[in-house]
Amino acid sequence: MRKILIIGSGKSTSYLLKYLLDKSEEENLFITIGDLHIEHAQKLTNGHKKANVIKLDVFDENSRKTAIQNADIVISMLPARFHIEVAKDCVFYGKNMVTASYISPEMQNLNQEAIEKGVILMNEIGVDPGIDHMSAMQVIDKIRDDGGEIILFESFTGGLVAPESDNNLWNYKFTWNPRNVVTAGQGGGAKFLQEGTYKYIPYNRLFRRTEFLDIENFGRFEVYANRDSLKYQTIYGLQNTKTLYRGTMRRVGFSKAWHIFVTLGMTDDSYTIDDSENMSYRDFVNAFLPYSPTDSVELKLRYQLKIDQDDIVWNKLIELDIFNPNKKVNLKKATPAQILQKILMDSWTLSQKDKDMIVMYHKFGYEKAGKQYQIDSNMVTIGQDQTYTAMAKTVGLPVAIATLAILNKAITTPGVQLPINKEVYTPILKELQNFGITFKEKEVPYLGYNPLNH
Amino acid sequence: MRKILIIGSGKSTSYLLKYLLDKSEEENLFITIGDLHIEHAQKLTNGHKKANVIKLDVFDENSRKTAIQNADIVISMLPARFHIEVAKDCVFYGKNMVTASYISPEMQNLNQEAIEKGVILMNEIGVDPGIDHMSAMQVIDKIRDDGGEIILFESFTGGLVAPESDNNLWNYKFTWNPRNVVTAGQGGGAKFLQEGTYKYIPYNRLFRRTEFLDIENFGRFEVYANRDSLKYQTIYGLQNTKTLYRGTMRRVGFSKAWHIFVTLGMTDDSYTIDDSENMSYRDFVNAFLPYSPTDSVELKLRYQLKIDQDDIVWNKLIELDIFNPNKKVNLKKATPAQILQKILMDSWTLSQKDKDMIVMYHKFGYEKAGKQYQIDSNMVTIGQDQTYTAMAKTVGLPVAIATLAILNKAITTPGVQLPINKEVYTPILKELQNFGITFKEKEVPYLGYNPLNH
Repeated sequence: MRKILIIGSGKSTSYLLKYLLDKSEEENLFITIGDLHIEHAQKLTNGHKKANVIKLDVFDENSRKTAIQNADIVISMLPARFHIEVAKDCVFYGKNMVTASYISPEMQNLNQEAIEKGVILMNEIGVDPGIDHMSAMQVIDKIRDDGGEIILFESFTGGLVAPESDNNLWNYKFTWNPRNVVTAGQGGGAKFLQEGTYKYIPYNRLFRRTEFLDIENFGRFEVYANRDSLKYQTIYGLQNTKTLYRGTMRRVGFSKAWHIFVTLGMTDDSYTIDDSENMSYRDFVNAFLPYSPTDSVELKLRYQLKIDQDDIVWNKLIELDIFNPNKKVNLKKATPAQILQKILMDSWTLSQKDKDMIVMYHKFGYEKAGKQYQIDSNMVTIGQDQTYTAMAKTVGLPVAIATLAILNKAITTPGVQLPINKEVYTPILKELQNFGITFKEKEVPYLGYNPLNH
Repeated sequence: MRKILIIGSGKSTSYLLKYLLDKSEEENLFITIGDLHIEHAQKLTNGHKKANVIKLDVFDENSRKTAIQNADIVISMLPARFHIEVAKDCVFYGKNMVTASYISPEMQNLNQEAIEKGVILMNEIGVDPGIDHMSAMQVIDKIRDDGGEIILFESFTGGLVAPESDNNLWNYKFTWNPRNVVTAGQGGGAKFLQEGTYKYIPYNRLFRRTEFLDIENFGRFEVYANRDSLKYQTIYGLQNTKTLYRGTMRRVGFSKAWHIFVTLGMTDDSYTIDDSENMSYRDFVNAFLPYSPTDSVELKLRYQLKIDQDDIVWNKLIELDIFNPNKKVNLKKATPAQILQKILMDSWTLSQKDKDMIVMYHKFGYEKAGKQYQIDSNMVTIGQDQTYTAMAKTVGLPVAIATLAILNKAITTPGVQLPINKEVYTPILKELQNFGITFKEKEVPYLGYNPLNH
């Protein structure tokens, strides 16, 4: 019996657990799920004989260590900042570990010790980061093996609402942590590389510098730049690549409307509003507009941002009910971003029947024997319901598959890892296809980065 | 003989020193000026028999302590962050001290010890902070003594170029630390109070939410909000005041053009540009614009910011020569703000004959016996030349006068002080009048804060 410990049973555990339980007979697995709140995990395991749910406080050193010692491999589905305690124990007790989160500097510091102990600490193996790494590296490696040199790499991911559940003017609902959506793009300018030139976009222009993309059968999307487009330049081996751009996908028109919140200051998370608790939504909006007792909040906003009354962005604001004088914020000493998040959650929370969607799009430009080529590749995954979401699927399945591959010694390289090597991505991408997570590749004419070509 | 030690002999020391030397016979003073670079101080003292210039490194503990021990009172004209070492020694050796800088938390921490030792640490006694405190508190106290209650207080200061030297389209030159001008307004939103409502302006809107002011004989100015309008609410005793707004004055049109730099991201001081050294001014501008080989940098900028070719702001940009492909940045790993500062210094550095100007404008609204009144008060000071600037005058004279008043026991309250008490401001404002620094007060109808009334 191989014992898997899953710590944390949040939104993204459903597919992960289902995959492992479905394989539990054949692969001889026993799964223990530890969480502070066990109800959700109990619902998911539903009395499965190969699963056990335990109450586990990750900050209670004794019970954490005992649980880890008893496992053959550990999956941490905790919020990213809590992984490190688990990782230290895993290295100490010689247990392999898998997470779907970005490698933190603290995690990276465990690398040498993990190598010495022969322990694998596999990270960034969910979705953005995860499937994006694997699907990109597979194409990049193929191009290189074939004698090509990558001259352009652009990569875009979006967590969106599925077309069949898309029924608001923003074409958007929260399918993941709303806080990250509200504060996205803040903290220094976005930096990327276009045709050999570094480009910078300050936060206040980020949502006005979008680009468009079409995905067959799914129509048009827009993209705004991530802050970290150069983060994987070295890791992917793209030091000589002239265009490097990573972005986030939304439906067309989202960013232009979101820019209003940015411009007014409503996404600021750096200070609190003293009397936020007693504010109405209307008061909140008015706090960012000039004092003028003879004008309405609506007119002041339209005038400040030069919005015509028949502009669709105006209807998007109205749809969110942000001018309502009767709805109270009800949050003590909240930041503008926290208040905005609350207002948006009224409108953008998925209902029980809603489905989510993950979209991903890569462009690979390359040169071979003096000629230039381009491959475009995209993936769309649609959720099943509110438990088996596309997000849970694309995060949880790669984690589960990697866990099994490590147990079965298909993945063996020790240390702090992310899934960029063939050893890792080949079996995982293959298995993901069995679950409908497939990339459509096509050769297109190489255009380079040029907005006129888009 | 009363011995005064002045540490630091920067731009603002000229009037300070002249005032004290002119009084040296009558008041029996001897002035020692300590600086790392003694040339400027030697030029200013010009062999005066009551002055001595010494080379002093404020971080050399021994020579600093010796110099302080030998003095009867110490003036620190160092950059604000260096005052604290001097202040600690002053408390230790029982010497009074005067600075023109904001009270830092470290300085404030010395309060109790200073009181116990009977030492006066007088701060914020230059201009903004300084003359603004004193002139405002004199009117506020007068209104209160007369039974009035303050319901509105707005206060604006600007360091500008004098009308006779005003010969560029921005109507602006650097008359003080250029770095502070370039980064002004950053870091969290500006917060203020208008008719009982808190208002917030994010940095990206700060220069589009200006208000206008007229000063007799000097025409129209505009004001953008300071970040700290509520900083002195408690200190001034304005807890019940419904409108509190502090701002910075510029000539009309400056802010609308400055907003272009903010919007493009050129004032960002939070990251460095790797290859800044070899960039041209044109490359710098282009780094904030989309890649497009078929369009000019000029057209891309105009299109992004929707600037008509005949808009005056366009001419302001051209005047700064920011599109020049031949002028090099020549700064290693500089932040956008540092590069912008360099570009602006080409155009906005005062020439030898140029004069500067300090403008200040206060509005006091008050209620007495059920009726509402308003007093407006303004001050304009124009510099003499590049040594005897208005800035040096308005910073240096109050410092000098306060120093003498402390020596003469006209100011006696120990502890960490700022000039808001009658004991302090009355003699100083009176003496300033002898140097032409006078406030013009007038009663105007009370309008409250209402943009329609402006």
